[in-house]
Amino acid sequence: MPRLGINQYGKAETHLVRVMRDGDTHEVRDLLVSVALSGELSAVHLEGDNSAVLATDTQKNTVYAFAKEHGVGTPEAFAALLARHFVGGAITQARVEVREVTWSRMAAHAFVQADRTVRVAVVVASESALWTLSGISGLVVLKTTDSEFHGFPRDRYTTLAETTDRVLATEVSARWRHDGSASFEDARSALLRTFAGHHSLSLQQTLYAMGSAVLSDCPSVEEIRLSMPNKHHFVVDLTPFGLTNDNEVFHADDRPYGLIEGAVLRDDASDAGPLWDPYPLV
Amino acid sequence: MPRLGINQYGKAETHLVRVMRDGDTHEVRDLLVSVALSGELSAVHLEGDNSAVLATDTQKNTVYAFAKEHGVGTPEAFAALLARHFVGGAITQARVEVREVTWSRMAAHAFVQADRTVRVAVVVASESALWTLSGISGLVVLKTTDSEFHGFPRDRYTTLAETTDRVLATEVSARWRHDGSASFEDARSALLRTFAGHHSLSLQQTLYAMGSAVLSDCPSVEEIRLSMPNKHHFVVDLTPFGLTNDNEVFHADDRPYGLIEGAVLRDDASDAGPLWDPYPLV
Amino acid sequence: MPRLGINQYGKAETHLVRVMRDGDTHEVRDLLVSVALSGELSAVHLEGDNSAVLATDTQKNTVYAFAKEHGVGTPEAFAALLARHFVGGAITQARVEVREVTWSRMAAHAFVQADRTVRVAVVVASESALWTLSGISGLVVLKTTDSEFHGFPRDRYTTLAETTDRVLATEVSARWRHDGSASFEDARSALLRTFAGHHSLSLQQTLYAMGSAVLSDCPSVEEIRLSMPNKHHFVVDLTPFGLTNDNEVFHADDRPYGLIEGAVLRDDASDAGPLWDPYPLV
Amino acid sequence: MPRLGINQYGKAETHLVRVMRDGDTHEVRDLLVSVALSGELSAVHLEGDNSAVLATDTQKNTVYAFAKEHGVGTPEAFAALLARHFVGGAITQARVEVREVTWSRMAAHAFVQADRTVRVAVVVASESALWTLSGISGLVVLKTTDSEFHGFPRDRYTTLAETTDRVLATEVSARWRHDGSASFEDARSALLRTFAGHHSLSLQQTLYAMGSAVLSDCPSVEEIRLSMPNKHHFVVDLTPFGLTNDNEVFHADDRPYGLIEGAVLRDDASDAGPLWDPYPLV
Repeated sequence: MPRLGINQYGKAETHLVRVMRDGDTHEVRDLLVSVALSGELSAVHLEGDNSAVLATDTQKNTVYAFAKEHGVGTPEAFAALLARHFVGGAITQARVEVREVTWSRMAAHAFVQADRTVRVAVVVASESALWTLSGISGLVVLKTTDSEFHGFPRDRYTTLAETTDRVLATEVSARWRHDGSASFEDARSALLRTFAGHHSLSLQQTLYAMGSAVLSDCPSVEEIRLSMPNKHHFVVDLTPFGLTNDNEVFHADDRPYGLIEGAVLRDDASDAGPLWDPYPLV
Repeated sequence: MPRLGINQYGKAETHLVRVMRDGDTHEVRDLLVSVALSGELSAVHLEGDNSAVLATDTQKNTVYAFAKEHGVGTPEAFAALLARHFVGGAITQARVEVREVTWSRMAAHAFVQADRTVRVAVVVASESALWTLSGISGLVVLKTTDSEFHGFPRDRYTTLAETTDRVLATEVSARWRHDGSASFEDARSALLRTFAGHHSLSLQQTLYAMGSAVLSDCPSVEEIRLSMPNKHHFVVDLTPFGLTNDNEVFHADDRPYGLIEGAVLRDDASDAGPLWDPYPLV
Repeated sequence: MPRLGINQYGKAETHLVRVMRDGDTHEVRDLLVSVALSGELSAVHLEGDNSAVLATDTQKNTVYAFAKEHGVGTPEAFAALLARHFVGGAITQARVEVREVTWSRMAAHAFVQADRTVRVAVVVASESALWTLSGISGLVVLKTTDSEFHGFPRDRYTTLAETTDRVLATEVSARWRHDGSASFEDARSALLRTFAGHHSLSLQQTLYAMGSAVLSDCPSVEEIRLSMPNKHHFVVDLTPFGLTNDNEVFHADDRPYGLIEGAVLRDDASDAGPLWDPYPLV
Repeated sequence: MPRLGINQYGKAETHLVRVMRDGDTHEVRDLLVSVALSGELSAVHLEGDNSAVLATDTQKNTVYAFAKEHGVGTPEAFAALLARHFVGGAITQARVEVREVTWSRMAAHAFVQADRTVRVAVVVASESALWTLSGISGLVVLKTTDSEFHGFPRDRYTTLAETTDRVLATEVSARWRHDGSASFEDARSALLRTFAGHHSLSLQQTLYAMGSAVLSDCPSVEEIRLSMPNKHHFVVDLTPFGLTNDNEVFHADDRPYGLIEGAVLRDDASDAGPLWDPYPLV
């Protein structure tokens, strides 16, 4: 009989909106919560015995009930609260991911969802430990100069011209590993400031610089991983129309795109535990 | 032989990024340009005679070349420039739609795409006339109180409870018709201010109030159309868990959704011409 | 006070799955139902008086209840049943759109959703009349030859080379107007057969031929509208690598794309009534 | 100075369409190719030294050139060809993912993209080894009976009723690890046959049965991983309308959804090498 390997299950993308009405000025929090549990789950896979399977419907209910009973603090704190709760009995590990969009206040009880980025928190709990990732997705940035790309190898299939001045654009996804105390705003600022100020010889160099800046600004961050698609902006050839194009008119292409990814760690970074395990699995 | 009816063709979604480098501080504009031409086009449909068919590839080239030759002013002005250019000969009408996303400055030549809304301009040109729409899409707003819904008819299939206090959320799409002189910021502000300040007895009433406010604040606007999905926020029943839920914990649902749509016009509004003709056709 | 113009409201995208269990072999139907009502709705817009506003929640309930009470016949029949039901009192017009995906049988009660196309039915009812559209979306087709494009005008911005042999690909959206008796399969077959067999001098010509074929094969169809994006397949220049490319290797591009749209009608086509009115409005 | 951790880069989603014209009857292949390279890449990250960075533009060119020079065999073979090519010098590992959509023949040179599933192949090459995954995404299946769910634990937050008859629907993503010789059709058939024929006590049990069937039918498959969202179909409560609902009328919900994931392996499965390493990284 085949062996059961790595497995996890849970309720994904419970969309919770929590309103705080303490006084005239309301607050609103908007979270997408995903839970993945693992542990001693052979019986359900092999025999359909559900006695250890906390229903995903129950997990959803728990998300809503906890939002009332405990309130919603930082996404990291809410994820930790839930992850700790789900560990016990057959469930030896719980992963909770929270994706939060922010609402900007217009009035005492009116809001606009202005920002396009998503704040992410991932907490994995076992019976004896807790691991925390914070992150951001959808952070789209562009610089109109201070970006070069040359000195790359040329083989039979290379046609790309070298450039000392190009538009560089990317949509940053980042996750940083810490003890739960790192400031989200500090990390976000370090990413933006470095992208803006860095003179780039390659997107890889920029990625490393951005990651290093987060480590530098946020003492509790041990590791950061970044995924940065190179959103190509091609200079349009206007010579057929008798026009010059000195990096003024670009075609922003969709696909294909370069995809540059990397991790930056402290030398003495602790073990990441199950934090970087895949979710979803495929 | 069947008759050729309404028809149009053109290049859709040319993604133009225009950088202005006049001095140390750069500017960046990011436009998605769609062109639709119509006119005496029977020959191509019935016989495959392309002598009147300006290639959509040429239309794309024109977008890029015009961005260099003329620069990009307001989206309305750039759309008008292009629409006027394409009219002539067999082409008796040109519709140009521009969708612009904004980049916020971080530094002299670095930008972040912070805002999730899209500014829209539609210009239709004929040989003798020009019509202009401005608009916004993706404007997501929410209010935590000041929204009621009751007094609706109850038939055999009605189960909805009446409410005097609910969360109201929508994603506004709006298009307003004017002579080209209306301020985008004034219209956007009127929409937001009215949503925030209005005491709502129904989303229809809110829509009408928002449209009226734009007409009031923007003297050159003759008509506005709004499409506002009711993004339902359902109060989660926490009583099985021994908890109260006084409009504090909500499930934000995806589908189905209410879809509330309407136009608000001045009494003496001029004829809209071909502005509201469908694009795309199906 | 500004005037209320065109308006409609309703519940959009109610996702109904109906299982028929009459005997050992089950049937399954999977519909997305959208309702839009209009009529004497000034009171709700101007005063928030909901006495004429059948709640969109009630509309959703009606969709589910009718699926039980009346079963689901063709999408056109189910849309007509609902549209007729909603007309009455203040509501003088109801538009119901049904989008159906098909499940292919694997066993007596197991199914796979194999096909990527969506079958569409739109019915508009007034107190005295009924109008019907049928259609298909997501019909992606490609031909590797029998497509030319030349003889188009060349202006200052034209660089496109003429071609007598190109790959032609499109994703057909079509809606045809009839009395309710036209066979969906006959219309779909006419579209596919004509795309496959037609020697194309332009996508416009192909569109007209496809529409004409539906009119020819389906006697009750009075008009058909087609929207056909030209999904460009560009011949990759392999000469830098010392390779020929005789229409063998293509880059399939996402954006921009040509968008070719048109209607084909019988000479004696009846009035379309409100069928082609915009939905959604913006 | 912080340490560079796991990293990879490459050109993602090159959309290649290959037409074979050997004779009157054409063939067409439609592939999305993504490349990720890793190796001795410290210099580019730390110093912006690109001497080891094969440009992603070159990778794209290589995909197109190889399609001409070598043709496109199975997606696994094409991925292997590319992955082997990219390894060398500083590049010690190459991952190539191919996603293929299929075109069904309508005529000698006309095709329709009927199937909504995507066939996937992933090959990772090092200087001395090659690892292969095959897979499928977008395989949507549903059964109208033969699915139970009961015996799960009940805690304070559990409200879900037990059921001995429910609709079960999922969208299967699967990846199976083998030596390159496994038949895609055999694996796909095993997945479908088992979903259809299995009496399910939980989706986990069904997942394990489906994985086991692939191992049983495909001798060269050593491991399979499956990700199966539980696409909830909720029985609509029709009692307010005086109607019964004996598993006939369902609301198909979007979110949240259960997400059930697991691996099934042979007892003597070899080491998976870098096959399951994350891509993208975050």
